[in-house]
Amino acid sequence: MINKKVAIIMGSDSDWDVMKKAYLKLKEFGVESECHIFSAHRTPEESIRFAKNAEENGFGVIIAGAGMAAHLAGVLAGNTTLPVIGVPLNSKQIGGMDSLLATVMMPSGVPVATVAVDGSVNAAFLALQILALSDERLSSLLKEEKKNMREKVMEKDSKLQEKLLEL
Amino acid sequence: MINKKVAIIMGSDSDWDVMKKAYLKLKEFGVESECHIFSAHRTPEESIRFAKNAEENGFGVIIAGAGMAAHLAGVLAGNTTLPVIGVPLNSKQIGGMDSLLATVMMPSGVPVATVAVDGSVNAAFLALQILALSDERLSSLLKEEKKNMREKVMEKDSKLQEKLLEL
Amino acid sequence: MINKKVAIIMGSDSDWDVMKKAYLKLKEFGVESECHIFSAHRTPEESIRFAKNAEENGFGVIIAGAGMAAHLAGVLAGNTTLPVIGVPLNSKQIGGMDSLLATVMMPSGVPVATVAVDGSVNAAFLALQILALSDERLSSLLKEEKKNMREKVMEKDSKLQEKLLEL
Amino acid sequence: MINKKVAIIMGSDSDWDVMKKAYLKLKEFGVESECHIFSAHRTPEESIRFAKNAEENGFGVIIAGAGMAAHLAGVLAGNTTLPVIGVPLNSKQIGGMDSLLATVMMPSGVPVATVAVDGSVNAAFLALQILALSDERLSSLLKEEKKNMREKVMEKDSKLQEKLLEL
Amino acid sequence: MINKKVAIIMGSDSDWDVMKKAYLKLKEFGVESECHIFSAHRTPEESIRFAKNAEENGFGVIIAGAGMAAHLAGVLAGNTTLPVIGVPLNSKQIGGMDSLLATVMMPSGVPVATVAVDGSVNAAFLALQILALSDERLSSLLKEEKKNMREKVMEKDSKLQEKLLEL
Amino acid sequence: MINKKVAIIMGSDSDWDVMKKAYLKLKEFGVESECHIFSAHRTPEESIRFAKNAEENGFGVIIAGAGMAAHLAGVLAGNTTLPVIGVPLNSKQIGGMDSLLATVMMPSGVPVATVAVDGSVNAAFLALQILALSDERLSSLLKEEKKNMREKVMEKDSKLQEKLLEL
Amino acid sequence: MINKKVAIIMGSDSDWDVMKKAYLKLKEFGVESECHIFSAHRTPEESIRFAKNAEENGFGVIIAGAGMAAHLAGVLAGNTTLPVIGVPLNSKQIGGMDSLLATVMMPSGVPVATVAVDGSVNAAFLALQILALSDERLSSLLKEEKKNMREKVMEKDSKLQEKLLEL
Amino acid sequence: MINKKVAIIMGSDSDWDVMKKAYLKLKEFGVESECHIFSAHRTPEESIRFAKNAEENGFGVIIAGAGMAAHLAGVLAGNTTLPVIGVPLNSKQIGGMDSLLATVMMPSGVPVATVAVDGSVNAAFLALQILALSDERLSSLLKEEKKNMREKVMEKDSKLQEKLLEL
Repeated sequence: MINKKVAIIMGSDSDWDVMKKAYLKLKEFGVESECHIFSAHRTPEESIRFAKNAEENGFGVIIAGAGMAAHLAGVLAGNTTLPVIGVPLNSKQIGGMDSLLATVMMPSGVPVATVAVDGSVNAAFLALQILALSDERLSSLLKEEKKNMREKVMEKDSKLQEKLLEL
Repeated sequence: MINKKVAIIMGSDSDWDVMKKAYLKLKEFGVESECHIFSAHRTPEESIRFAKNAEENGFGVIIAGAGMAAHLAGVLAGNTTLPVIGVPLNSKQIGGMDSLLATVMMPSGVPVATVAVDGSVNAAFLALQILALSDERLSSLLKEEKKNMREKVMEKDSKLQEKLLEL
Repeated sequence: MINKKVAIIMGSDSDWDVMKKAYLKLKEFGVESECHIFSAHRTPEESIRFAKNAEENGFGVIIAGAGMAAHLAGVLAGNTTLPVIGVPLNSKQIGGMDSLLATVMMPSGVPVATVAVDGSVNAAFLALQILALSDERLSSLLKEEKKNMREKVMEKDSKLQEKLLEL
Repeated sequence: MINKKVAIIMGSDSDWDVMKKAYLKLKEFGVESECHIFSAHRTPEESIRFAKNAEENGFGVIIAGAGMAAHLAGVLAGNTTLPVIGVPLNSKQIGGMDSLLATVMMPSGVPVATVAVDGSVNAAFLALQILALSDERLSSLLKEEKKNMREKVMEKDSKLQEKLLEL
Repeated sequence: MINKKVAIIMGSDSDWDVMKKAYLKLKEFGVESECHIFSAHRTPEESIRFAKNAEENGFGVIIAGAGMAAHLAGVLAGNTTLPVIGVPLNSKQIGGMDSLLATVMMPSGVPVATVAVDGSVNAAFLALQILALSDERLSSLLKEEKKNMREKVMEKDSKLQEKLLEL
Repeated sequence: MINKKVAIIMGSDSDWDVMKKAYLKLKEFGVESECHIFSAHRTPEESIRFAKNAEENGFGVIIAGAGMAAHLAGVLAGNTTLPVIGVPLNSKQIGGMDSLLATVMMPSGVPVATVAVDGSVNAAFLALQILALSDERLSSLLKEEKKNMREKVMEKDSKLQEKLLEL
Repeated sequence: MINKKVAIIMGSDSDWDVMKKAYLKLKEFGVESECHIFSAHRTPEESIRFAKNAEENGFGVIIAGAGMAAHLAGVLAGNTTLPVIGVPLNSKQIGGMDSLLATVMMPSGVPVATVAVDGSVNAAFLALQILALSDERLSSLLKEEKKNMREKVMEKDSKLQEKLLEL
Repeated sequence: MINKKVAIIMGSDSDWDVMKKAYLKLKEFGVESECHIFSAHRTPEESIRFAKNAEENGFGVIIAGAGMAAHLAGVLAGNTTLPVIGVPLNSKQIGGMDSLLATVMMPSGVPVATVAVDGSVNAAFLALQILALSDERLSSLLKEEKKNMREKVMEKDSKLQEKLLEL
């Protein structure tokens, strides 16, 4: 079985700084991804065509990051039956509430799996968890990562104890 | 010159109760409209095709009403250079803030002329004001309506004076 | 390969009216699910044990619905590497904003795939989309469903045209 | 037919930095505009007189930008039947929610076509779309611009592909 | 010295149910008031003329109640130097946050003394407190009322004690 | 008749930067004020005693500025029948919504005349408008100021015209 | 050692329906309580006197419930060093956000232990937990209650399994 | 009787800057505390074990600080009958509203005593007030501190008077 790829779609190149973290996390786990700038409003046809062909082109999950009236994830979700993960991006004016609500409040039948505002790393983790359902290697790596996260917290706790001694 | 029509698009038949008011207001002013149920997520191609051909098909303005993660107006606006008026529809859970933000916070180059939550009548008025720019008859009717509105308020004020006498 | 089950966990029996819709949608697609009432705060051990053993017990996805300070999805996500879908349930006082933010704003490494407030049907759809990645039958059914949704909207549009003739 | 002008009204000279972008965008499209500082509260008569005479003075659209309790667009709309576009300006304290709600939630019969917080460029685009309904040249330019926007997004996508190769 | 009157202005006759309470409270204290329906958007000239002449016509305070994009109090305040008290009226869709922000966030030099959402009784009390500054009788009545309020709370406390005995 | 003073009360010395503007505006109009740091929670007795004696001590209006759970204005209002003006001060965390709601949503019988977040200058203007009801000199000055504000806006408009010529 | 009592203070008799639940829960645990209607604004002296003497009068914890600009808990906290638990009560207009923020956002040195909107039962539980620190009997009862809560959830889960069989 | 300790738990080492203030305040009052980094999602077992054993290990109160979907305080509260104080920590994106709602809106039977956003000092004060119920020394110190706070405000008032003389 050929491994499925992850698509990372964003509405503008200014979103790359946040969305890059998803790309790097996927790379860290050895999962191939493609990154694209498509706009629900400026390149609707490219967005839709990409979504329509995503499954056939070997993608298993689509991650979409957008700000303000964030329609990108929803528009992609309307044109594929692959799981679409939405990353609401923080906007200067309304503090991310606009993109969060525009991403998460999808109508029945067209879900967008929404993560936290600017939560691109978690979008990658969610994609990995989804792909891991049929990928033993990934599944093991995620369990390993969960252990590592646990240990890192415990190390931080130890360091805090040292810091407290010096207070 | 043939008069331009107004399109009234909504995401679901449950939106008709609110959007019908736009239809009736346009009719009252003798402006032809077409009403359609298109969904940004369930019939994206129909939505886009409609928007792409709207100008050629004789439309001058598109009114779009949608609730929750209200993408409809934005998606239509992405596929036409006609003015698109967005009516954020009230949703049970978040009280209309979701559809308001998802409709109004559009990115540069793709505006949606947003009216109040459930403001379908005002969407019709805005469409009439736009069409009136090149339609003397409409322009006169709107001025007449403005006078009527003024007089109605003044009548209400008079009635209030009577009511006060009885208190 | 044995098909993976979906777990539907909720914090209280009062959540069943909303969460039942997820159960029925999964059943409609022939996907086995288990429903449980576990509370992040009242039965933390049962919650955690369930999450820890979910993969081994044949589950592929966990759906968790909770209201107010909705910790359930997050607590389950902290104890499994399976994808966890969170359904923020509407609360009387703050209108669902509390459960939405408490479900979606998860820290790095522990995502919760959040759907709309009271969006239990979409949680089921998302679970189906995830399972369909390695299940041809489901994948076909979802594509069929997408067509059906499209046709239903088009039928509603046709009915609206008839209704308009009678106005 | 003489081309209609656009009025750009703002409540204070501190709004010019944002509203200037509307002016420049209109200029870029060869549309004449007049910019004025009128205040709904400090120069109510000037505001009203301007709105009352705007049509006669050759204006086709009025753009109004204001912050906080943003009454300017509404007050202008109350005194003209021309379409009025409202730009809610971001305020330091409440993050633009005050000006957004004060601009968009207009009562029946007096619409304000509201764009995003600080969305002055989109106000210009909306004005251009409205004027283009009876101006072939503008209509062509807007279609050209739509293509350009599309191409810019595609170029950005290409550049992202190059950037990815270097990662 | 002739006693000053209070003006109670509201945007629509549907506001009377709430605003009537202000009228009745003023009447209870023997203060003359006039009630009017003026709309900032539909009868701007009447609104402004009223505000401009209010002082000369014997008014000391203006109370203005309006909902949604509540501009009425602000528009009146822009045309008088009398104190203007704003009552934000609850709207169905956004729960009063729209009228509250549109009433209270006034720019420098044009204050609106804002009371609670639907707080028409407090608008009357505030008007009475203002007029009492130069009216001994009112000042005494307000002190009396303060005592009465205190006693009513104490009576309620006594009744609660009785109720507790029966529990 | 001896002129009444204005009290400017604030909860902390860190509020002085904002509240000083009220003091300076009152001074500019020749109105005597006293400034005090009293805390509703840390010096409740001083706060209450001040409010109780304020009228006797020659005050006509009390201005109170406080942030976060801003109880100061309400506590003062509970202990005097003088008009109390509340200035909600911006807090770092919730952006002023906390102090706004805590100041404005007062129960029946105990109004706080609330101005905009950080609106200390408007608190001074409101105090001046209240005192001007029985002070001819102040009344004239306020009318003068209103003219000046109008002229300043008109000057800014003229300057904008010059700036436009250079663009 | 004499057991400490709990005070349940509320701003109005209309709050009794919610606050009664705290009284009944305390009674269920055999903890004596006194219930009073005191208002931060209408009976400030009674409120303060009660708080000042509460410790001496045998109280260990004060529970205070109030709505809108909920100052009651804060005012009590300013006059005692006993722990004060605040219950923000839901108001019709702003949905409890006003009372929540007015209760919880207390300044340094004067905490209010805030529970959920309308969370009177939890206020009682928190009071019991505090008193249990020096009361073995209460401590045991709370542990028992925790077990009961756990068992009730497990019973509900069992009943759900039965219900599922009948679906 | 051996004095009870306070536990200060936080979700990440980046929370230390805020939570340290609680530690220092407790130290100032001679109350022993332990500080730990435990995560509700990354080290759930450590979190739960700590909560379960806290009482036996000599703790009287648990303070928990967390940001975003702040589940930590709730998870600890689910596993102990000790009072748990929650400190919602400010997050970049949603301004603390997420952590506030996720901390305070706890279900019946499992209260979290919530203080202000970033209110770690008040968490310490609340812990001290709770412990002081059975600790005469602490009780005296808190009363002393209350006097000091009062005097500091009065000193600040005095300094303000000096500053005013120089204006």
